[in-house]
This record gives sequence, C-alpha cells and structure tokens, in this order.
Amino acid sequence: MTPSFEALQSQLKQLPGVGYRSAERMAIRLLLEKPESSKALIEALSRARENVTSCEVCGTICEAGECEICADERRTASGQVCVVEHVSDLLSLEKSGAYGGSYHVLHGKLSPINGIGPDELNIDALMRRVAAGSISELILALPNDIEGEATCHYLIDLLEPHGVKVTRIGFGLPSGGSVLYADAVTLKSALDARQSF
Amino acid sequence: MTPSFEALQSQLKQLPGVGYRSAERMAIRLLLEKPESSKALIEALSRARENVTSCEVCGTICEAGECEICADERRTASGQVCVVEHVSDLLSLEKSGAYGGSYHVLHGKLSPINGIGPDELNIDALMRRVAAGSISELILALPNDIEGEATCHYLIDLLEPHGVKVTRIGFGLPSGGSVLYADAVTLKSALDARQSF
Repeated sequence: MTPSFEALQSQLKQLPGVGYRSAERMAIRLLLEKPESSKALIEALSRARENVTSCEVCGTICEAGECEICADERRTASGQVCVVEHVSDLLSLEKSGAYGGSYHVLHGKLSPINGIGPDELNIDALMRRVAAGSISELILALPNDIEGEATCHYLIDLLEPHGVKVTRIGFGLPSGGSVLYADAVTLKSALDARQSF
Repeated sequence: MTPSFEALQSQLKQLPGVGYRSAERMAIRLLLEKPESSKALIEALSRARENVTSCEVCGTICEAGECEICADERRTASGQVCVVEHVSDLLSLEKSGAYGGSYHVLHGKLSPINGIGPDELNIDALMRRVAAGSISELILALPNDIEGEATCHYLIDLLEPHGVKVTRIGFGLPSGGSVLYADAVTLKSALDARQSF
C-alpha cells in the first residue's frame, strides 16, 4: 500500500485491542468508504485534546482542574476513596450506581516485566491526599490477578504508617456465575472469602 | 464524562469492529494514558486524507491517478480482472501471492436491506473497463453468502451481452479444514464443487 496509508495503519494499530487487520479495515473505512468520518474524527480528537485534562485530585478525565466527583461534597464527605487501575474501571463503578464515595485512578498496576514501577503510577497524588487527612477508608478495587495483588500489597505497606483504614473489594463468583464454569483462581478466592450465615 | 470526551468516543465507535466499551478505552488511551499518540494519529490521518485517493481504474487505494497494479503491464497483460468486495480482500489476495492479474474493487455487495443497490457500488467503472475491451476474464471473488451470491448474479446478467468470460472462485473446505467442523453451507458448496480424479 501507499506510505501514508501504512503510517495511518500503524498509528491505529497502537490503539488498545486493535491488531494489524483491524487497523487495515479502519484505515480503509476512514479513507475510502466513509471519508467524511475521518474529518469528524480529526475534529473530535483535536477538540478533546484541547479540552480534556486529568483531575488534579484523583486523576480521572475532566475539563477543568477538578472532576465533577471530586468537586461534589456529597461524594467526598464520607472520606471513602476507591482506588482503581483505569478511568474505565471508574466508569464501570459509576454505571453500577453501587458506590457513593470518590475515586483515585492509578493509570495502571505494578508490572516490573513491562517496566511499570511505582513512579509510573499516580501514587504520589494518592499519598498527598492521605497526608492531607481527608481519607477515612481506601477501598482497593484493583484486578484479581498477580499484578493487582502486588499493587495492593505495595500500597498497604506504603499506607501502614499513616494509620488509614484500607480494604479490598470482595472476590468470588460473579452474579449469574456457577461453580461449574468458574476457573480455579475464582474458586479459590470464593472459598477464601466464605462467610457464615 | 465530559462533552468532548463523549464526542470523541462516539466518533471512535463508528470505526469497524469498535463498540461502546472499546471506544471508551481508546479515548482514554488517546487522551490520558498516551497523549502523544493522539497527536501522531491526527497527523497520520490528516496526511493520509491529503495523499490517499482511490485508483481511477480499479478503485483501490493509491496516491496518484492509477494504482501500482493497474500501472504495471505485467499485471494487466493477461486481461484477468479479479472482482472483490473490499480493498482488504485485494490485500489478502496480494499477500497470498496466488494471483497475478489486476483487480476491481466494488466497495461493498448488493444488500437491499441496508439500502445498498448497484448505484452504491463501483460497477459503472467496471462496465467501462469491460466496454474498453481489455478484459479477457472476470474472476468474481465475492463472499460465499447470500448477498455475495446476489451480487454475482447481478454482474453476470449485466456482463452477458458483452460476451466476456466470467468465473467465480471455488468454494469448499479451507486448507486444514475437516468435514467434522465445517458448517452446512460450506459442505454443500464442497459437494457441489466436487471434481473427478
């Protein structure tokens, strides 16, 4: 193909979940099949680049210094802060309507094999919030995998001297799940998290 | 989320194979996690929009009036023209190295339910090539589904008065495929296409 087509394809391939063939299909759609959509995408992306920034408190997406949640006293009054890996995790929790406190987004989890250490994560800002004394409970809602586990332990060690209450979300069978189809890690988590009636 | 984030998400969702959640993840990656990649994407897309056009002969992607294949006498000498649905089909055939003629890209297939009739497809240009008399064989490499079938029959009716030889690529078990796992349509095609030793 042509050089500028290939350059576009390689940029699209860097988007999460996009492989070589999907990037090819996207580039063809944007350039030949629906050329008007490429103009709209450039405009939307340019506008979002100008307007969108990250909340200086919790790190999520916002358009001013502080996001809507951090600016909402009803959300911050309890002092509960839910620590999540990505902004999309925050969005999932918000959609569930199951949580009324505020958040802190790490933008990743510890992963030495991928070169991601504590300095690559949004941990300094979390420690500043802890030091400021407005946090009553930190709820770690990180993934149920080895890297999520490691990140939790790192944070717990870091937070211990500050005497802040730290909890972790429960693990076990998801809603609608059955023991038959659950994997070994889920079953182990579910057994460990058993509760008496 | 913020308005310009949502506008970007809805543009990304229009890309092929991208749903609501993938678009969300992409937008977060582009704006927060890897902001430098959004600049690179805008640049690559703008440059490709300026440079890339479709070949005036066959309809594939190119950077000048005629694509490399249509401009290559070794490819056009045989007069074989392979008719494909999308540019990506052309790319697949090229990667296989199995074909040495030239192409014609329809940019779709007949699909009344989606409002796609002959006028929406790149058929006029094909008929001009046929009328010009340089085509010895049209090889229809359209999908093995109802719409692909309908498009083939439409083209055959249209081409009949011109006396050009029209063939269709073979259908049957793919390489490595077994009768055990093949679906009913594939098995029917394979039986219909049986050959004697």
